[in-house]
Amino acid sequence: MNRNLLLISTSSTHGTGYLEHAEEQVKELLQGKSSILFIPYARPGGISHAAYTAKVQEAFAPWGISVTGVYAYDNPDQAVRHAEAVFIGGGNTFLLLRQLYANKIVKPLQERAEKGMPYIGTSAGTNVAGKTIGTTNDMPIVHVKTFDALQLVPFNINPHYLDPQPDSTHMGETRETRIAEFHNHNAQPVVGLREGSMLRVKGDRIELQGPLAMRVFLQGQKPIEFKAGDDINFLMEAV
Amino acid sequence: MNRNLLLISTSSTHGTGYLEHAEEQVKELLQGKSSILFIPYARPGGISHAAYTAKVQEAFAPWGISVTGVYAYDNPDQAVRHAEAVFIGGGNTFLLLRQLYANKIVKPLQERAEKGMPYIGTSAGTNVAGKTIGTTNDMPIVHVKTFDALQLVPFNINPHYLDPQPDSTHMGETRETRIAEFHNHNAQPVVGLREGSMLRVKGDRIELQGPLAMRVFLQGQKPIEFKAGDDINFLMEAV
Repeated sequence: MNRNLLLISTSSTHGTGYLEHAEEQVKELLQGKSSILFIPYARPGGISHAAYTAKVQEAFAPWGISVTGVYAYDNPDQAVRHAEAVFIGGGNTFLLLRQLYANKIVKPLQERAEKGMPYIGTSAGTNVAGKTIGTTNDMPIVHVKTFDALQLVPFNINPHYLDPQPDSTHMGETRETRIAEFHNHNAQPVVGLREGSMLRVKGDRIELQGPLAMRVFLQGQKPIEFKAGDDINFLMEAV
Repeated sequence: MNRNLLLISTSSTHGTGYLEHAEEQVKELLQGKSSILFIPYARPGGISHAAYTAKVQEAFAPWGISVTGVYAYDNPDQAVRHAEAVFIGGGNTFLLLRQLYANKIVKPLQERAEKGMPYIGTSAGTNVAGKTIGTTNDMPIVHVKTFDALQLVPFNINPHYLDPQPDSTHMGETRETRIAEFHNHNAQPVVGLREGSMLRVKGDRIELQGPLAMRVFLQGQKPIEFKAGDDINFLMEAV
């Protein structure tokens, strides 16, 4: 498969502007392109599709990339089929996946991404690039008929990965405990992607970018840390 | 309706043993009863049904209450129909609700609870007593065909409610933001139940118990804090 993906943990890190910390990687991914199709379905904080798209237009404008929102097309399927590149932004993952199915663009996105169309995801948009949305942090604010996601990579992603706080008195589960529970019912690897981290996929090769290590959870094994430059290509062979 | 419910945010608070902080309320609820049916389906940390039930037996033994696990019966429906009281423990809410449906005990639980059978929930077991599981904090580790829950009360509950941390640099959503997103798609009130808090329902009356206030979220309104002793009966009239 000729994949060309940039899967970013969070659109903004603390103290940086929208997509600012990933500027270099976004520009590299979009080399030679002049437009991108934005999918605002995740609606963070309930923001409208138009307002969310305007925010993204503002971020891409200085880089010479024009942005159109998929909601502006009568036929979202055709919009995806003709896009130079696609960006799915963050928000609520359940709402996002539900709308991807409702607007019948799951298959077109898969087909275009397999053929090399550049794909950018942040947060929920990164989560849906994985095998299922079973490792989202979001609240299930709407029901979705299946948790199967775009499956552009054969593993699951946990964006905004948070390490356990050793001094916490809170009795709710840590992120690591939740992922262990996930592995009682699911076999695929889970990548805990800390804020500021991103995965760059080219064909069957994958690498971690950004300043922080990522935490990989394999079913029945102790979590493993990988930093930028480490060989993590085994993740692309997961089934 | 002749409801008789005790909905507890968490089974243990920091530094207290299992159900210890709710001992007085549990004893009051179970006055005159000598047994309780335990539903271990939520399996916190993947613990087995038998091990989870053993833990609960140990907690109830000093109070003179015998505990049987629903998994020990060939017919869970009949077990619920003949139980003196029911306790649903915490763990993963998606797994719990899925198993309640798979074992066909949603309706029997509703019918018994409506007729006054004492019901105790902690964490996930409290979440499923609400209208839907749409305000759970848990990861969607298994798919469930509907988010509609037991609806023993006409509102939603967010157990382990956490206040925003003013000094956090994390970019993931706060609990309050997530509940506001829930209200973009759902109308029912949400009760943020802090650890150590519990709701006591008798018939159509409800009160908050425990040392902390609770935070009530009504669609389109600013959150409101209520403390033990405040009149919160309007929650039972939600639709």
